[in-house]
Amino acid sequence: MSDQDARPLRQPTFDLGPAIERLRSVLGPEGLLTADAEVAEFRDPFQHPSWRDFEPGAVLMPSSVEEVQAILRVANECKVPVWTSSQGRNNGYGGAAPRVSGSLVLSMRRMNRVLEVDEVNAAVLVEPGVRFFDLYDHLRATGSKLWMSVPDLGWGSVVGNTLDHGVGYTPIGDHVGQQCGMEVVLANGEILRTGMGAMDNARATLVHKRNCGPSADGLFMQSNYGIVTKMGMWLMQPPDCYMPGWLTLRKDSDLELLLEVLRPLMMDGTIPNQPMIINAVCAMSAFAGREQWYTGAGPMPEAVIDDIARQPGFGRWVMRFALYGDETIVERQREIVQDAFGTIPGAQVSFSKYDGHAMPELENPHERVQAGIPSMALDRMTRWYGGEKGGHIGFSCAAPITGRDGAALRDLVRTELNGAGLDYSGVIIVSKRSMIHVGLVVFDTEDEGQANNAYAACRAMVRSAAQMGYGEYRSHLDFMDLVAEQYAFNDHAQRRFNERIKDVLDPNGILSPGKQGIWPAAYRA
Amino acid sequence: MSDQDARPLRQPTFDLGPAIERLRSVLGPEGLLTADAEVAEFRDPFQHPSWRDFEPGAVLMPSSVEEVQAILRVANECKVPVWTSSQGRNNGYGGAAPRVSGSLVLSMRRMNRVLEVDEVNAAVLVEPGVRFFDLYDHLRATGSKLWMSVPDLGWGSVVGNTLDHGVGYTPIGDHVGQQCGMEVVLANGEILRTGMGAMDNARATLVHKRNCGPSADGLFMQSNYGIVTKMGMWLMQPPDCYMPGWLTLRKDSDLELLLEVLRPLMMDGTIPNQPMIINAVCAMSAFAGREQWYTGAGPMPEAVIDDIARQPGFGRWVMRFALYGDETIVERQREIVQDAFGTIPGAQVSFSKYDGHAMPELENPHERVQAGIPSMALDRMTRWYGGEKGGHIGFSCAAPITGRDGAALRDLVRTELNGAGLDYSGVIIVSKRSMIHVGLVVFDTEDEGQANNAYAACRAMVRSAAQMGYGEYRSHLDFMDLVAEQYAFNDHAQRRFNERIKDVLDPNGILSPGKQGIWPAAYRA
Repeated sequence: MSDQDARPLRQPTFDLGPAIERLRSVLGPEGLLTADAEVAEFRDPFQHPSWRDFEPGAVLMPSSVEEVQAILRVANECKVPVWTSSQGRNNGYGGAAPRVSGSLVLSMRRMNRVLEVDEVNAAVLVEPGVRFFDLYDHLRATGSKLWMSVPDLGWGSVVGNTLDHGVGYTPIGDHVGQQCGMEVVLANGEILRTGMGAMDNARATLVHKRNCGPSADGLFMQSNYGIVTKMGMWLMQPPDCYMPGWLTLRKDSDLELLLEVLRPLMMDGTIPNQPMIINAVCAMSAFAGREQWYTGAGPMPEAVIDDIARQPGFGRWVMRFALYGDETIVERQREIVQDAFGTIPGAQVSFSKYDGHAMPELENPHERVQAGIPSMALDRMTRWYGGEKGGHIGFSCAAPITGRDGAALRDLVRTELNGAGLDYSGVIIVSKRSMIHVGLVVFDTEDEGQANNAYAACRAMVRSAAQMGYGEYRSHLDFMDLVAEQYAFNDHAQRRFNERIKDVLDPNGILSPGKQGIWPAAYRA
Repeated sequence: MSDQDARPLRQPTFDLGPAIERLRSVLGPEGLLTADAEVAEFRDPFQHPSWRDFEPGAVLMPSSVEEVQAILRVANECKVPVWTSSQGRNNGYGGAAPRVSGSLVLSMRRMNRVLEVDEVNAAVLVEPGVRFFDLYDHLRATGSKLWMSVPDLGWGSVVGNTLDHGVGYTPIGDHVGQQCGMEVVLANGEILRTGMGAMDNARATLVHKRNCGPSADGLFMQSNYGIVTKMGMWLMQPPDCYMPGWLTLRKDSDLELLLEVLRPLMMDGTIPNQPMIINAVCAMSAFAGREQWYTGAGPMPEAVIDDIARQPGFGRWVMRFALYGDETIVERQREIVQDAFGTIPGAQVSFSKYDGHAMPELENPHERVQAGIPSMALDRMTRWYGGEKGGHIGFSCAAPITGRDGAALRDLVRTELNGAGLDYSGVIIVSKRSMIHVGLVVFDTEDEGQANNAYAACRAMVRSAAQMGYGEYRSHLDFMDLVAEQYAFNDHAQRRFNERIKDVLDPNGILSPGKQGIWPAAYRA
């Protein structure tokens, strides 16, 4: 177990051998990977090659709910931990790797069916192995007109992204908000359906989120309480008009002005999607490696960042956003937005306009993402240092949409990263009521000193941020305990609550021990 | 325990005496009501006078979280049930009355502080005793410009309405969607804060719904897992333009056309609030008693309903809805809406227009409600039969927004009610993705035969609706078990799950036993 600076834990011993023997007959060769090279694909992809934290023991790839149930039966009987991911592409947070080294890694990649497309109600029912690419392809191949929401990289799982509180960038980009009903296999093998799906043959399963009684959906997100095997998600009808926009800011401190101007536009829906505000380093990292701009040691000097900011289409901050809908309304929204941003000296605003019913091939990957078209074009942003060996850790705090909060998080992250000799590559993802400041903590995964510095900076930032009142919304494996430790109200009432639920739903502690700092009884010292 | 036609239950005996003695010193005379007349106020207000189901034992009115904790300590030690409501004004579902007769009724009416108004982020933190009236008065008295959301009657609790999946009628009318963070006292007296509030001094408590880990908020709604003592709720900035609209339909069958036209306007936000579609009987009940139109036995004849529908401003169905925001955008939305409704033969649309920053006194109570102004003007709708002795039970199913589903629910409810000799008074509340068909099952509470018919019709409708795939979203005390019984997927996996959670969080089974059909272990036969 890695050093997490939190309360003491112990690790029960377990032996995968007997479990693997039994699972071989259940899953067949396609469903059980034990060869080193195959298992290695499920390691934390950005870990230094010599590090051995979070090592998968073997990989299970069930193809059905029944196989998931069979896995849980074996795991309960053999008392072995099973770490579940959907696609496990969440690389800035550890990918598919398990918190407890040697765990069985259960990957849902083979459960990848789009089970239902409800064109009338703009909703789908999907399995967790369905990638954003897969859903998009399925919609287009079946003649559906529906638009979806995608994060910057399309290779992840629709379900997995949602379960981890992920976001996308069309007006349905608050994925948790668009989730409607789920099927969960509990640790004891029982199949639970939430929402209206708890009624057999219910008409409202994909349109009404709750039934009559408590809703457990939120419990199964960012937790280790069950394995989600199906999920309803809302899509949207294509807009008559799609108008992606760009805003560039000249000065670093303009960020504060922007956030104050932006907040009311978000709250009243004038901007209906989730804008992303990108700093110069991060924006450039989509196009170039660091070495094309600077090869010195230590953080990139301000003067070089200013050079980047002066490139055409760049600024100290760039914001992408988009408008959707009836053309007259979109044109009026454009005016309102332009007037509002016009109050920021030196701000530049530009727009493109498309017919949402007859979309051309979009060249700009950001404009594709905001149209819900999956892509891998932005993948290179994590390769700022070290080219193909580049990696990153996401350090991601939630805050109110205010200049004060934006400046506080920017300054905290920049100071810590620069102090660790690293560049500050940052984005702010803005939702209707709050924003997430993501420090993409980029580093060369083969440079152990730099990797160590990156981890140490993240650890320090978790603590400093909490002292300032900011909590992370998502966490890399290495910081899960530390992050959970910060949610300490009433002497960790939440942790005690989470662990009471854990103990009753998973008494043998087999499901993803340690996920978000939630440990089964056997691990608690 | 009333006849619920569900699985067998037993009722543990308990003696309130020792608990009341101990609580007297904790709560003082203002906090403990035992006199018959005072306790009677917390009975089911629409129960026939001779019926004795759901009788409160005594009433507890704590004034602080510490007093709530003290109550739970006593209840655990004395093993007595405590049925909690906020204001307990949910009269169509049983008011403040407890499911288990003789329970202590815990009313939060004295915990009625507005703890925080965040004008910048348009959010408030309130205690459960805060009524919609109180919040409105507080906002106006403190100079806040914020608009809120209210249900038709303003006397209910903001928190209580939200916890029971209630809705309002401004663009923030999906109350569960607008809830952000809560404080809960668990059965063991521990105080839990959800969301970002789990971090001390968090900046994002009122703006970001989740933290890093599972979210339990949904668990504490429509359940008996804890007592909510504080809740964050989102409000909205006043719109430049407020434009309430009316649509009247000539024919009963036009409902189906309307729903098909309405669905896309809801999904894309052209209509941003929650429209209410009201049938002629229900619409008239806001202005007149039944006897002004018909005094015969059995259901009102179609010809009389047609007479009502021909009154100015009436129709077989009337829909209220409203537009909010920038005037140019609102005017374009009005055009889109008019064009869409214009495809329904005989449909009439009309609008009013107000400056949201300088609202006049609005005469029409529906237009007040849609501006978030609390009112009691629509209270008389439940007095269709029997004048002051009139009452109702809400029979409320969720469904997709389609003509097929609207017609199916209308026909089901009308057929059952007319078969029971009762008029069909119905409204459909339309949300972004789904709708709730509410049969206001109105009856004269002093006419025992009619009351029995009403209850029998509801019981029959629960079952018939479930066979057709429709589940209730809320339930009167008398049908909680029957409603829960319908969510039967996988041989009642949800009930087993709910009861596992119940048993671990409330091992003595003191909190609201039987709420939504969730029974503590001691009650399960």
